[in-house]
Amino acid sequence: MKLVSFSSQGNTTIRPGLVVQETILDIPAACTLLQLSSPDSVQGIIEHYTTAKESLQSIIEAAEQGKLGDASYALRDATLAAPIPRPRKNIMCLAVNYTEHAKETAALRDHGGEPPTQPVMFTKAPTTVNGPYGEITIDPEVSSKIDWEVELGVILGKTGKNIREDNAMSYVFGYTVLNDVTARDLQSRHKQFFKGKSLDGSCPMGPWIVTADEISDPHNLALRLRVNGEIKQDGNTKQMIFSIPDMIVTLSRGMTLEAGDIIATGTPSGVGFSRVPPEFLQPGDTMESEIEGIGTLRNPIVAS
Amino acid sequence: MKLVSFSSQGNTTIRPGLVVQETILDIPAACTLLQLSSPDSVQGIIEHYTTAKESLQSIIEAAEQGKLGDASYALRDATLAAPIPRPRKNIMCLAVNYTEHAKETAALRDHGGEPPTQPVMFTKAPTTVNGPYGEITIDPEVSSKIDWEVELGVILGKTGKNIREDNAMSYVFGYTVLNDVTARDLQSRHKQFFKGKSLDGSCPMGPWIVTADEISDPHNLALRLRVNGEIKQDGNTKQMIFSIPDMIVTLSRGMTLEAGDIIATGTPSGVGFSRVPPEFLQPGDTMESEIEGIGTLRNPIVAS
Repeated sequence: MKLVSFSSQGNTTIRPGLVVQETILDIPAACTLLQLSSPDSVQGIIEHYTTAKESLQSIIEAAEQGKLGDASYALRDATLAAPIPRPRKNIMCLAVNYTEHAKETAALRDHGGEPPTQPVMFTKAPTTVNGPYGEITIDPEVSSKIDWEVELGVILGKTGKNIREDNAMSYVFGYTVLNDVTARDLQSRHKQFFKGKSLDGSCPMGPWIVTADEISDPHNLALRLRVNGEIKQDGNTKQMIFSIPDMIVTLSRGMTLEAGDIIATGTPSGVGFSRVPPEFLQPGDTMESEIEGIGTLRNPIVAS
Repeated sequence: MKLVSFSSQGNTTIRPGLVVQETILDIPAACTLLQLSSPDSVQGIIEHYTTAKESLQSIIEAAEQGKLGDASYALRDATLAAPIPRPRKNIMCLAVNYTEHAKETAALRDHGGEPPTQPVMFTKAPTTVNGPYGEITIDPEVSSKIDWEVELGVILGKTGKNIREDNAMSYVFGYTVLNDVTARDLQSRHKQFFKGKSLDGSCPMGPWIVTADEISDPHNLALRLRVNGEIKQDGNTKQMIFSIPDMIVTLSRGMTLEAGDIIATGTPSGVGFSRVPPEFLQPGDTMESEIEGIGTLRNPIVAS
């Protein structure tokens, strides 16, 4: 299934929907029509998926039978928010999780270009979350070095601690496309990454969450980043240094992970600040972040 | 005013209270008795303080008139949670914000002992939050180097971005005592601090939030850390390198701060891992974190 958070022209409340081809099925409206019950947010659906799943399947069946005209929207007419518009905690991110990216950043970081032997993790504030087609605002008073980082986002489906490797994938609810937009000047200036990673709007996500059952191998997905149509990053999740189970095992040691938690799994090579000469996003640019089998984010860069 | 989150023997719901000397006034119960309205959580009270303040003052007056017997609890009989038991985002923390602490950690970090020229900031997950008297569990499978860091906690009262220095203190709702308990082995192993700072229960807070009007100078408060009664840290917030306005200005540049946000302002010298020989918390220890004018946390260390 593909889960979105969306609003529509007649109803500006952000609510959960199911994407079926070019249509969004409005989950709360469909529940009313079909006398079903379901949580009224994607976060709630994830937390209660065991029971909500049945309602969602009934909604899809009813749509196939043409019963949901009043609860359907053309995808192109809806406004998509990030699938989880306000996560319950910061987004947890892997740094240097692709070997070629470790090499390209060697001169600018203190790791000498060697891939890390242990996962390196930082966070982005929940206020960074941006829609899949939302504007990214550049304020030159704050940063003039805004860079791209396309990443596979992993959404967790249940609570766990000290999770075992052989069981880790059962904690994955689904996947999304995420861009860990970074202010390189602030990232360097403040040493720890939090500040440079946490400017408002610097985490576009979506367009939807694809449930784990629809991605046969999350460790073999092409991911690409384009600026104004030009490919800047062109990698594959099979190049990740630490796998998704590695991340879940490491993060959950002594620390409870929860349903709705978001893990950004690191970016492949091709970021702007490592280029010669360095490149950064500018007002007027369009940044596209694409992952095979999930979808594409398209974010215009604008001046503040 | 002193705001707590508490439960009682007859009512295990965590709810907001006002501490008046040795008594807790149960805010929701008092509101029912007095036909007032108030949010039912400390987070809600902070977000709506402009309107809630009047109700809280009426509750205090009613208590002085002996009208709140049924909504009062002896402080010693109540169970205190952290004042904000579940923050809406990670706790934002300053690293190396005391000169002597910068010196003592020089050999073990990469900063050479020089105080930082820009604030260094990382986060702790919301799942770290622990009560003022809660147990801190040590799991030797996860970490054997659990260290103390007493810190002044700043609670923000309103939303703001690009906050000016001359206006920054108006964003402070109040203060609390906080201990940024740290797994030193994980902090080093994972480079970025998030993982080593985010074990479950590693952020005891409280006992309450003292509103800003009751702290005449937050930059001149003695803070002390004792393990089994022995003083390990003995500093004063006047030794902070970056002031509270500095932190608010820096954090809010390009990043929206929100009511209920928590800033941990850094720890003075005397932490365990810099001692010769190094010292770490052990099951059976009692850790006390005290700040002048606010209160004292008392956390037993237990084995998992």
